[in-house]
Amino acid sequence: MTQTVFSSFDYKMMTQAIALAKQGTYTTAPNPNVGCVITKEKTVIGQGAHLKAGQPHAEVHALRQAADQAKGATAYVTLEPCSHYGRTPPCAEALIKAQVARVVCAMQDPNPQVAGRGVQMLRDAGIQVDVGLLEQDAINLNPGFIKRMKTGMPFVQLKLAASLDGKTALANGESQWITGAKARQDVQAYRAKAGAILSTVKTVIDDDASLNVRWQELPNSVQAVYQKDLVRQPIRVILDRQGLLQDAQYSDLKLWKNEGDVLAVHDPLIEPPLSLKSYQQFVAAKVVNQQFELPALLKQLADEHNINHVWVEAGAQLAASFIEQNCVDELIVYLAPKLMGTDGRGLTQLCGLSSMSDIIELDIKDVRMVGSDIRLTAAIKTK
Amino acid sequence: MTQTVFSSFDYKMMTQAIALAKQGTYTTAPNPNVGCVITKEKTVIGQGAHLKAGQPHAEVHALRQAADQAKGATAYVTLEPCSHYGRTPPCAEALIKAQVARVVCAMQDPNPQVAGRGVQMLRDAGIQVDVGLLEQDAINLNPGFIKRMKTGMPFVQLKLAASLDGKTALANGESQWITGAKARQDVQAYRAKAGAILSTVKTVIDDDASLNVRWQELPNSVQAVYQKDLVRQPIRVILDRQGLLQDAQYSDLKLWKNEGDVLAVHDPLIEPPLSLKSYQQFVAAKVVNQQFELPALLKQLADEHNINHVWVEAGAQLAASFIEQNCVDELIVYLAPKLMGTDGRGLTQLCGLSSMSDIIELDIKDVRMVGSDIRLTAAIKTK
Repeated sequence: MTQTVFSSFDYKMMTQAIALAKQGTYTTAPNPNVGCVITKEKTVIGQGAHLKAGQPHAEVHALRQAADQAKGATAYVTLEPCSHYGRTPPCAEALIKAQVARVVCAMQDPNPQVAGRGVQMLRDAGIQVDVGLLEQDAINLNPGFIKRMKTGMPFVQLKLAASLDGKTALANGESQWITGAKARQDVQAYRAKAGAILSTVKTVIDDDASLNVRWQELPNSVQAVYQKDLVRQPIRVILDRQGLLQDAQYSDLKLWKNEGDVLAVHDPLIEPPLSLKSYQQFVAAKVVNQQFELPALLKQLADEHNINHVWVEAGAQLAASFIEQNCVDELIVYLAPKLMGTDGRGLTQLCGLSSMSDIIELDIKDVRMVGSDIRLTAAIKTK
Repeated sequence: MTQTVFSSFDYKMMTQAIALAKQGTYTTAPNPNVGCVITKEKTVIGQGAHLKAGQPHAEVHALRQAADQAKGATAYVTLEPCSHYGRTPPCAEALIKAQVARVVCAMQDPNPQVAGRGVQMLRDAGIQVDVGLLEQDAINLNPGFIKRMKTGMPFVQLKLAASLDGKTALANGESQWITGAKARQDVQAYRAKAGAILSTVKTVIDDDASLNVRWQELPNSVQAVYQKDLVRQPIRVILDRQGLLQDAQYSDLKLWKNEGDVLAVHDPLIEPPLSLKSYQQFVAAKVVNQQFELPALLKQLADEHNINHVWVEAGAQLAASFIEQNCVDELIVYLAPKLMGTDGRGLTQLCGLSSMSDIIELDIKDVRMVGSDIRLTAAIKTK
């Protein structure tokens, strides 16, 4: 296979299509972020982004703008145009009808079952198709969608926050506001990107945590591109082995008072106390050694709820479970510029690491300051 | 007082003088790093750096190069020229003799007892003197020298190294190589800059630590500017309350086998076992609650050994002592991309922090990757 040579103009246009795709960052779930630019004689004649499931795809917006001029034009798309009838007709068909001359895709469809079909449809219609321009940037647009399409599992980010000496609370449990205001805003932005926010009944009850997206607490940079009336609330998945949340004494929690669905996960072998919250969904998941089997639960979230991207925010025990069960794609670690002392509570409850070869090794992808705190992005190395 | 306006040429020349000053980074202790550039009609006619105590000052090197042309020239110096007879005659006098027309200093002499005298000598001789160009950069050249001159105390850097969850070793003590090769090279560079490396008898005995500068382990960037035959070994200050190092059983330690002085610090109330190592210096320092009074010890290092800059490298207990006794100017924290688990040993032994207001707050000055590890530079905020 020969390597396609892209021109600097091609790079510029795909860069623009990628920037357009980012307009959907907070709204397209469970669909992917896609951008499209149509050019003719080195002039942009149409552009568009996919913004929300059920609404037109990026190519359709761009083709509408280009109208009759699309004939003989070049379309730059960040993802292979779809070839199937979903809630909207296939984009490959629309591009063929518009008689474009060339389509440049940043990447193939990640779903192995349909990958290449859109390209084939276009080529069969005599359109030149070039694939692979700025592919990594296109992949970075949709880590969750791509992982789910490829593996059937969602992309999981685990949030950790601790002092520089790895403590999350003093020995007496006192812990409010370890990280600063900017880090808390940053967490809101991560929540806003996710399809699900996963936590535990302990966090919900102890902290009366809402675990929702609060527009007014998003960073200004996010507010600038995400209008308040478009706010989409991720589904809140609460691990609640004993079904405590169904108890009347917890009917006043903030969790219930905010918009957004709650999916409480309980142990099917434990009889829940009382089904007060019958309007909320409760699902049963397998429990082994008093821990939920997280891979099976995550698969269920992907299959039954189209969740691409899970943001996990809870205590040291759940963090340890996710790590031990190999369910973390990315650790997002906030380190506050503080020393909390020997007696403080630890970052994870990873027990029994007794030799240096048991240690969990990370690959740091990014490190930066977020206000006065440090934020690390890391992947766990496979052994 | 009117603000002096410096030209872009002035900035350029002082930048060059600061770059020259850095040539002495590893060799000038206990003297400061100083650079000098002499120009005439916007052409450099002489330049120099102070490289080693006892050797000529930067101004002298530059004046020698400029020779007769120095008359009517401008001299850019990173530090106020000295006004007193030390091991070399005063530089202010040399500049007057050379009949330069103007002297630009980045900063005043930090010693409040002589600050301004050099400037005054020059002005009295009819030379125009402008002070304050790129002052902060000049201050950054000599944190240790400046602190000792101003306060009588050395500048103290405390090294910490831990996993991302704040552990320095597994519960069983296993810990070798938590950080990677690049971080260990980086530590060598910090040691090389210091006047003293301070540690404990426990570190020396348990790890058979040499605590010296090993040229072949310095980063390439340092080797490029620091010739092997110029290597200066910082004095090694070992806290040894009971005088254990004088015991014959420890006569084979690497500590004794490397070049460089050892200053063992013992409790004057404890009789040392045997004075085998009488050729080494032993000093007595005050002990309160089984801990050395660190401020008094540091003052002794500054007063009696001209130590500007102390690099502290030891275990969690000494780290806690330095922090609790407010003796740290800068924390250098290496975080390895690892999770070591709940049972691991902690970064510091700061005990009894029982409320959030007891927490030690840091100000992060720098964060960067060093190889695969993260390095933070932080100051402790005063309460």
